[in-house]
Amino acid sequence: MGGIKDRVAIIGMGCTKFGEHWDKSAEDLMVEAAYEAYEDAGIDPKDIQAAWLGLQYSFGSARGTMLAHALKLNYIPVTRVENACCTGTDAFRNACFAVAAGVYDLVLVMGVEKLKDSGLSGLPVSYAPFWGSRVEPPVPAPVQFALAATRYFHHYGLSFEEGKKTLAKIAVKNHHNGSLNPRAHFQREITIEQVLNAPMIAWPLGLFDCCGVSDGAAAAIIARPEIAKSTRSDYVLVKGLGLSCGARQALLNDDYDMVHFEETVTAANSAYQDAGIKNPREEIDLAVVHDCFTITELLIYEDLGFSPRGRAKEDVDAGFFTLEGGLPVNTDGGLKCFGHPIGASGLRMIYEIYKQLQGKAGPRQVKKADLGLTHNLGGHPGHFTCAVAIFGRKD
Amino acid sequence: MGGIKDRVAIIGMGCTKFGEHWDKSAEDLMVEAAYEAYEDAGIDPKDIQAAWLGLQYSFGSARGTMLAHALKLNYIPVTRVENACCTGTDAFRNACFAVAAGVYDLVLVMGVEKLKDSGLSGLPVSYAPFWGSRVEPPVPAPVQFALAATRYFHHYGLSFEEGKKTLAKIAVKNHHNGSLNPRAHFQREITIEQVLNAPMIAWPLGLFDCCGVSDGAAAAIIARPEIAKSTRSDYVLVKGLGLSCGARQALLNDDYDMVHFEETVTAANSAYQDAGIKNPREEIDLAVVHDCFTITELLIYEDLGFSPRGRAKEDVDAGFFTLEGGLPVNTDGGLKCFGHPIGASGLRMIYEIYKQLQGKAGPRQVKKADLGLTHNLGGHPGHFTCAVAIFGRKD
Repeated sequence: MGGIKDRVAIIGMGCTKFGEHWDKSAEDLMVEAAYEAYEDAGIDPKDIQAAWLGLQYSFGSARGTMLAHALKLNYIPVTRVENACCTGTDAFRNACFAVAAGVYDLVLVMGVEKLKDSGLSGLPVSYAPFWGSRVEPPVPAPVQFALAATRYFHHYGLSFEEGKKTLAKIAVKNHHNGSLNPRAHFQREITIEQVLNAPMIAWPLGLFDCCGVSDGAAAAIIARPEIAKSTRSDYVLVKGLGLSCGARQALLNDDYDMVHFEETVTAANSAYQDAGIKNPREEIDLAVVHDCFTITELLIYEDLGFSPRGRAKEDVDAGFFTLEGGLPVNTDGGLKCFGHPIGASGLRMIYEIYKQLQGKAGPRQVKKADLGLTHNLGGHPGHFTCAVAIFGRKD
Repeated sequence: MGGIKDRVAIIGMGCTKFGEHWDKSAEDLMVEAAYEAYEDAGIDPKDIQAAWLGLQYSFGSARGTMLAHALKLNYIPVTRVENACCTGTDAFRNACFAVAAGVYDLVLVMGVEKLKDSGLSGLPVSYAPFWGSRVEPPVPAPVQFALAATRYFHHYGLSFEEGKKTLAKIAVKNHHNGSLNPRAHFQREITIEQVLNAPMIAWPLGLFDCCGVSDGAAAAIIARPEIAKSTRSDYVLVKGLGLSCGARQALLNDDYDMVHFEETVTAANSAYQDAGIKNPREEIDLAVVHDCFTITELLIYEDLGFSPRGRAKEDVDAGFFTLEGGLPVNTDGGLKCFGHPIGASGLRMIYEIYKQLQGKAGPRQVKKADLGLTHNLGGHPGHFTCAVAIFGRKD
């Protein structure tokens, strides 16, 4: 069992503005993301030998031909991957395996989702029935993560006011970062008071503790490093990939602790092992993680090893995860400002890390950006799917 | 761009009986297929390091956790692949890339579908809307392939009677093979007269020209050959893999010929190149192909290079594709007898090739079985997805 470290390079990326794209089709969004990536990589679309498409919702079938048709890539192989909120990153992961195996030289990975005009919000329908399977009762996502919040507050002795304010600081941080990002759906700063006074969605999570609902697409062009070096000097290397699927039914079990998600721990450990990372808090320079709710980001700090268990509040209070902090998280604004067009989110996160590692993140640029991490978490407590990917500068 | 030849081995497989499984869940079917594969490979389920799940229908999300949960494979990575009728084979293909890249040592690939109690037949709903995309009007699958049949008859000067009888011989052959297979949904022989006199579904295709609707699951355990050889002496090697996605809108274009499907030609060429096959008619010993309709199998003979263009009828008349013929096709009974539980079909086909190459196909065993091929075709004329895979005996 060998790692993926330094065997795959990103040579180009593209990302649409995320938001309400009532006037654009999913195909339009794919074209926009792909052509930015082609131009960034300096390649001709005809040189693409294979593609992976990350797209969640389908009501039947969402197949590779959708990408082939949108981009006029006739008769190339296109795999469509769907894996809940990890869809985009898992499409990227599978494409990396094909490149690392030497099967294709130049590969396109696309993540896309049109949520606004789908009739789906991405939240209340997150329970997906599986014919003939025993699954737990449908509990909307805000309620599931509200359970984590109340349990975390209780477990670590935070009052409602303390806990709520800690979460508010995460929302304020992410909105600040989003205000510096022309591709974000929401580009306005918010205040702690706005978060605290916002309508309650699922106690203790209010409106600003929840991410939005958006449309968007993002794309990457990948190749083996020996090919990458002929295209540009600042390509970005894949350092580690981890994926973990839980197999429990948390809401039907009494012993689920609800203050950590083991899927994040195991996916991260796998990626850290690939990348040779022993102390993520010290070694990782920045991260873009799955803040579907503010409490999720808080738990992720601890599950990724960025904060000691129960100590994430101290790091939040100290500004450790801000743009100027020791380990900036969600430098692009996160799900909080981008919303979560499911298939696109993973590649949107990789786009931010890619630009940061190249020193091209403009007003959001962090000082030290040698090693960056992305994280997705989808599904439900006990049977989440979690993807962690780590990227590094070439030298 | 390097091939996949001899870099991945199948060391175990399982396949449920296909049919009406009203009393079994998709999880039950996955357990049955997986445990047959574990036993066949002589491995402990705990040794599985990663898995791929092929499953088409979801109405929302069908994620890797479904397999993790069914098989109690807690915290392993599971990718769910969906690619129309190529779903199972494309899941297998992606798993092969990960194994060939050396990322995992022992990998499970599962294909499953419960169609009977889904409210879906697999046929009338084969048109899948894609939000915001321009797609052609929904035309049921039997009608699409009926267009191919009438056009083929016209193009090659076959009367209705000649064409219909040729197709009937394909149905009779596949039902004969299925009658020898205890895992097939339909295990009865039929006669030419029954086919000719059956109710018309979409002229000229009658009831027995169409495949059935079934539930089923099939699974494979794969590893690199150096690991495979420590488990068994008769493992089967992957010799070639091809996938091709069309990007046209045939039914909106006048110039589509409807007497061949370019996706099959291009996917096969890719797999033949991998496997070093120059003359498939001579070199391939047997094949299991996508006979969703009898006309599809007829076109596939020519698109795979088994018959010269326009000459498949002569080969059918000569019995070239029967169990005793020069190139037996659909030795297990095909979609005709297995139905087409979408995610499961590709792995069901591989199961048959695997058993034939090991000489374990019982009354269906073909005389020479050194090199076998599987073929799937999904979607619609002009934008089909096609997967071709080639397998060989170890020596």
